[in-house]
Amino acid sequence: MDTGKLSRILKAMEEQGMPQMIISDPAAIFYLTGKWIHSGERLLAMYLNVNGSHKLVINELFPQEEDLGTELFWYNDIQDAVELMTQFIEKDKPIGIDKTWPARFLLRLQELGGGSKFLNGSMIVDCVRIVKDDHEQEFMRKASLLNDEVMGRLIPWVTKGLTENGLAQKVAELHKEVGGDGLSFDPITAYAKGAADPHHETDDSKGKRGDCVVLDIGGMKDNYASDMTRTVFIGEVSDRAREIYDIVLEANLRGIAAAKPGSRMCDVDLAARNYIEEKGYGKYFTHRTGHSIGMECHEYGDVSAVNQDMIQAGQCFSVEPGIYLPEEGIGVRIEDLVLITEDGCEVLNHFTKDLIVVPED
Amino acid sequence: MDTGKLSRILKAMEEQGMPQMIISDPAAIFYLTGKWIHSGERLLAMYLNVNGSHKLVINELFPQEEDLGTELFWYNDIQDAVELMTQFIEKDKPIGIDKTWPARFLLRLQELGGGSKFLNGSMIVDCVRIVKDDHEQEFMRKASLLNDEVMGRLIPWVTKGLTENGLAQKVAELHKEVGGDGLSFDPITAYAKGAADPHHETDDSKGKRGDCVVLDIGGMKDNYASDMTRTVFIGEVSDRAREIYDIVLEANLRGIAAAKPGSRMCDVDLAARNYIEEKGYGKYFTHRTGHSIGMECHEYGDVSAVNQDMIQAGQCFSVEPGIYLPEEGIGVRIEDLVLITEDGCEVLNHFTKDLIVVPED
Repeated sequence: MDTGKLSRILKAMEEQGMPQMIISDPAAIFYLTGKWIHSGERLLAMYLNVNGSHKLVINELFPQEEDLGTELFWYNDIQDAVELMTQFIEKDKPIGIDKTWPARFLLRLQELGGGSKFLNGSMIVDCVRIVKDDHEQEFMRKASLLNDEVMGRLIPWVTKGLTENGLAQKVAELHKEVGGDGLSFDPITAYAKGAADPHHETDDSKGKRGDCVVLDIGGMKDNYASDMTRTVFIGEVSDRAREIYDIVLEANLRGIAAAKPGSRMCDVDLAARNYIEEKGYGKYFTHRTGHSIGMECHEYGDVSAVNQDMIQAGQCFSVEPGIYLPEEGIGVRIEDLVLITEDGCEVLNHFTKDLIVVPED
Repeated sequence: MDTGKLSRILKAMEEQGMPQMIISDPAAIFYLTGKWIHSGERLLAMYLNVNGSHKLVINELFPQEEDLGTELFWYNDIQDAVELMTQFIEKDKPIGIDKTWPARFLLRLQELGGGSKFLNGSMIVDCVRIVKDDHEQEFMRKASLLNDEVMGRLIPWVTKGLTENGLAQKVAELHKEVGGDGLSFDPITAYAKGAADPHHETDDSKGKRGDCVVLDIGGMKDNYASDMTRTVFIGEVSDRAREIYDIVLEANLRGIAAAKPGSRMCDVDLAARNYIEEKGYGKYFTHRTGHSIGMECHEYGDVSAVNQDMIQAGQCFSVEPGIYLPEEGIGVRIEDLVLITEDGCEVLNHFTKDLIVVPED
């Protein structure tokens, strides 16, 4: 286990009166052990105890050749893994539970009385993970550089007659081409009507002259994720669409300007949102301004009106305001990742945000 | 909503004293509404109440154009969806919880006192889903016919010098080629050492003369899944490997013979397992004999020693005994899907189980 990360987690457990905790998210287990273990529907749990008796509970189907630096507690398919865990869980003490732990395990543990109180323990891990150490910062930079490169290679394809699905497939090919390790999420590559729906699922629509094209893409590199959005236009851009573009771009810049230590996450949201509201499009900006990112594309720490957490150096999150006008088939979103520095932030995406009209062949 | 399925679920809720229930599994929601909704990390919940006041709780980011036959209860990203749900949840009554519901929602609901008792409610849905109606049975047959076809086209490729990953990629291509709707799980296409590990992750190994090759593949068709395993040999087969093959094949046949109404799920497991144990390889058969399957590749209802549920007509599950000898680099698994009839079972896979030695070019 990474002793630096582990000791930060144990310290927070001590401080918050959480003497024991179950971590089940494979990403969090990777964060601690350096090993990705995918156990599917089978229980996989890292049990941490401030007294030092940590254990990784794992099915015999997943033999481990490397030393993970922690005791392994094996079970098999004919055993009730949760019941076995009550052999070592301290029943008279509170226990932290991973936010992702499926109810089938949690309800069983509660039925067995495996803890005096059940608390969401993920905040502790997430608040450690939210601050990237130097190595992680370097991984985040590299992942976004690849994503910049992919965006550049992708844009010429929007006028080549590909369907949205074809364009999404192209994102996967390009990330492979530039040396990435796969995608960090299913790309959103949406023309016009699809672009005007912020969570459109790509389909077999094709683009036509004048369409806006939302390209929300990201890849993995060395276990860290990238995520960026650009909106471009096919052949020409209407004055109306340009007006929307300029508003979103200014909102993106204002969000980035607010991203610094001493601000709160909601301040970033408000900086972007207030500008869009001032311009009269508040009700067409229907989602939060961003999300934290790291080993997973969406990590703890929304950039939203309700998140009053103070921003700390080492955090990494997206700033992605958008305006969606379904009636007009216009949607614009512009997204960058920022890495918080001592006195501001470093924007990890370097791909231009100037309005691009892609010439038709 | 499918009123037939819904009324079977409500009847079971009445009988089991569970007046209200939260269903969150997208597959279960599809089962009831006919609509797949993928909401990612955002809460999506079908609330059922025996008094008829059902609601689908859904984020505004996922507008629904079709009528889903139930009231929609909208929330947005700046609201606490679980807290909103306590407006209609009956706090003084027990509530069933979906087995897959992440702890972050369940712990929050418990904190708000949203129910007098929290129970795993998925058994009710699963026990309805486990019995396939006539339409579903037809979908299961069609999905497996495609999988048979893919197996036939795949086997010649094991001597073409592909890596395991290359072979897995071929499975995806072939399922597309035969008109399938994608894969039902990541294929296991494993040579020798990999074949000897029942949950091997495919890698860049290549096969060589004498290797056994485990091909565990499945696809989706019209929302239903297939899953089959065959083990073939490259160029030649050792007497030792043939011995193992014959034992696994007989275990597969014995398992299938035990799959009928009136038997228990564990009887199928034991029929296969006892034979392998008799032959002295019990400790090398390290997993359960099978799993239920339907809209998802793994559904409720293991074919394992601990599942004493009686088998009912309309159930569909896999029978997949295996023997794994890591020291010798030999692994054999043979898997078919069976559909339980009134007096026995229909084997959904028709691809031969005769030992196949694939000639080298």
